[in-house]
Amino acid sequence: MAGEREIRELTVDLGERSYPIYIGAGLLERAGALFAQRGLPVKSPLLLVTDASVADRYAGIVESSLRAAGYAVSRAVVPSGESSKSLGRFDDLITAALEAGLDRRSTVIALGGGVVGDLAGFVAATYMRGVRFVQIPTTILAHDSSVGGKVAVNHRLAKNIIGAFHQPEFVLYDLNTLTSLPAREVKSGLAEVVKHGLIWDAAFVEWCDSNAQRLLALDPDALGYALYEGCKVKAAVVSRDERENDLRAILNLGHTIGHALEAVGRYGELLHGEAIAIGMVGSARLAARFGYAGEIAETTERLFRKIGLPVRIPAGYDTEAIMKAMLHDKKFMEGQMVFVVPTAIGTVEIRSDVPAAWVREIVEGLKEEAGVR
Amino acid sequence: MAGEREIRELTVDLGERSYPIYIGAGLLERAGALFAQRGLPVKSPLLLVTDASVADRYAGIVESSLRAAGYAVSRAVVPSGESSKSLGRFDDLITAALEAGLDRRSTVIALGGGVVGDLAGFVAATYMRGVRFVQIPTTILAHDSSVGGKVAVNHRLAKNIIGAFHQPEFVLYDLNTLTSLPAREVKSGLAEVVKHGLIWDAAFVEWCDSNAQRLLALDPDALGYALYEGCKVKAAVVSRDERENDLRAILNLGHTIGHALEAVGRYGELLHGEAIAIGMVGSARLAARFGYAGEIAETTERLFRKIGLPVRIPAGYDTEAIMKAMLHDKKFMEGQMVFVVPTAIGTVEIRSDVPAAWVREIVEGLKEEAGVR
Repeated sequence: MAGEREIRELTVDLGERSYPIYIGAGLLERAGALFAQRGLPVKSPLLLVTDASVADRYAGIVESSLRAAGYAVSRAVVPSGESSKSLGRFDDLITAALEAGLDRRSTVIALGGGVVGDLAGFVAATYMRGVRFVQIPTTILAHDSSVGGKVAVNHRLAKNIIGAFHQPEFVLYDLNTLTSLPAREVKSGLAEVVKHGLIWDAAFVEWCDSNAQRLLALDPDALGYALYEGCKVKAAVVSRDERENDLRAILNLGHTIGHALEAVGRYGELLHGEAIAIGMVGSARLAARFGYAGEIAETTERLFRKIGLPVRIPAGYDTEAIMKAMLHDKKFMEGQMVFVVPTAIGTVEIRSDVPAAWVREIVEGLKEEAGVR
Repeated sequence: MAGEREIRELTVDLGERSYPIYIGAGLLERAGALFAQRGLPVKSPLLLVTDASVADRYAGIVESSLRAAGYAVSRAVVPSGESSKSLGRFDDLITAALEAGLDRRSTVIALGGGVVGDLAGFVAATYMRGVRFVQIPTTILAHDSSVGGKVAVNHRLAKNIIGAFHQPEFVLYDLNTLTSLPAREVKSGLAEVVKHGLIWDAAFVEWCDSNAQRLLALDPDALGYALYEGCKVKAAVVSRDERENDLRAILNLGHTIGHALEAVGRYGELLHGEAIAIGMVGSARLAARFGYAGEIAETTERLFRKIGLPVRIPAGYDTEAIMKAMLHDKKFMEGQMVFVVPTAIGTVEIRSDVPAAWVREIVEGLKEEAGVR
């Protein structure tokens, strides 16, 4: 049924801040029409934020489409990579927005992966105390970060510590942009896709297991379906708890350990999806400590191995450094460690009663040099 | 009736984000009790942001009161003056918040004038995507900025261009802190007090006219009443239009020209209240051009002279520089100049049809070297 021309659409239901997600092949060419259809003001200039690796391939397509629809658009290019999520780059983009003449009715567009989305989104959230924002993700990983309105930059002491909740006007997902992704990025992105199944939808986890090879081969039908299902879970959770008062925290499955591993690896050694894949295996082992079925850990680990994701902490990562990095995590409240723990495949719970000793043991047990498996 | 011990209280009505403003003498000593009464979590550390000129006088009083109520509080001191409203100082405060161990349930406190309130408020708005915020203004001018949730830092190209709407938990206004204000700061603050009358309440303008000497002498009864009335107007406007979609823009009376004068004076020569006093005289003259009663300009100018505020643009301010600075103002949308124009004492309207030529003429006419009066 699903052909390359099909557009899947779903809605993030947030009352007057509700917005659609469009998923399909060839959507970049239709950006201008979609902007007009969604009522974005044509009189106020737009700023397209992108990174060096995406700009050459796709920025021109989006700009042409927007200009054909009557929009004035300026381009701001940041270097590729996590280091662009800094206050320095943020300052540069505010300068670019001022120089491009953006006013209160203007729109900031993020064309790229999660780094570009988070950075451009924080610009949109704060420029003139908030302007409109459109997400055009170009990675699989960004199916997660582009939905839900969390935007942020990093601080040298902590990741995503400076940010806001700022929902986009819509999310435009062109499957064609995914064909140029390196294989390692594809796998990393699939970690977040699987995460959405693990927290919410056991049937989708099974589907991922059965369709892992099609996903790795970037089969457009499989990819379109997986992104639709992943976004659907994200949208369902965000709709119920926009500002992460309770439920939304379940999206952090694997992220407590994962963020610590990224920090210890100085945000360069492990990709985000790789780090949280290891983290999800850790959370599954924590589930066993709490007495939940041991098969959770086995199923999680087997699926990540099938996708080609790491399931062990690389050699040389110091346990104390990992434990210390966790203490700076936003998920810790009033000095307590908070973990998302699976209770079965497809459901999780939030535990603030995890003994630090258990965490330490699990981190030790996940280390490659420990020689487990 | 009104004695030094009286506490005036009013509410900014914003649904679930509603909050009280407390005005009275000796409230700093009661900070801890008020924090507890308002339900601010005692387990999460607080960060008190203040500036060098306020820290020595008042920070210790607030901290002692908070500690007596069981709160852990750290102090972060920034240099006095507008230059602290920068991304660099913001970054320093994020570091301070991390080092003090602030978590998602923590509260950031602004103790000081508008600069401290705007800066600390932007920290509260963005640290971990938003934490609680309490305003303790110590200037008359800050009766305006501490109410309504507008927070921001400056960019080298434009004032207040990076910011958010982030409402405080409450505003605590201790009249005793105003006794240490320099005379020039007192006058500057009274400009915003009078502004609230000019946009909303003719009777209050008359009261200010009759009580100017008591206000300048910092008579606590007069000051308490004036701040209460000023905050009441601000609260009424903000309650009707939190995010400045329409009505709230009337609070910008005098600010289009005023901000430009501050920019041309490099934010050091004119105090904010001085700049907007001149701007309000300009707006009143604009009213005459639109055919409204000429007495608006005379009344406005006479009252500001009585208070000792400037009503002319200082010698040496270049008209072209002023016009250019206005173009970078957030109040301009889709290339149109937007002005708040009085239609009588106590009411204003928003005009987007002001010819640039009129503005230029009025700026020229307001210059000291033009020799008018």
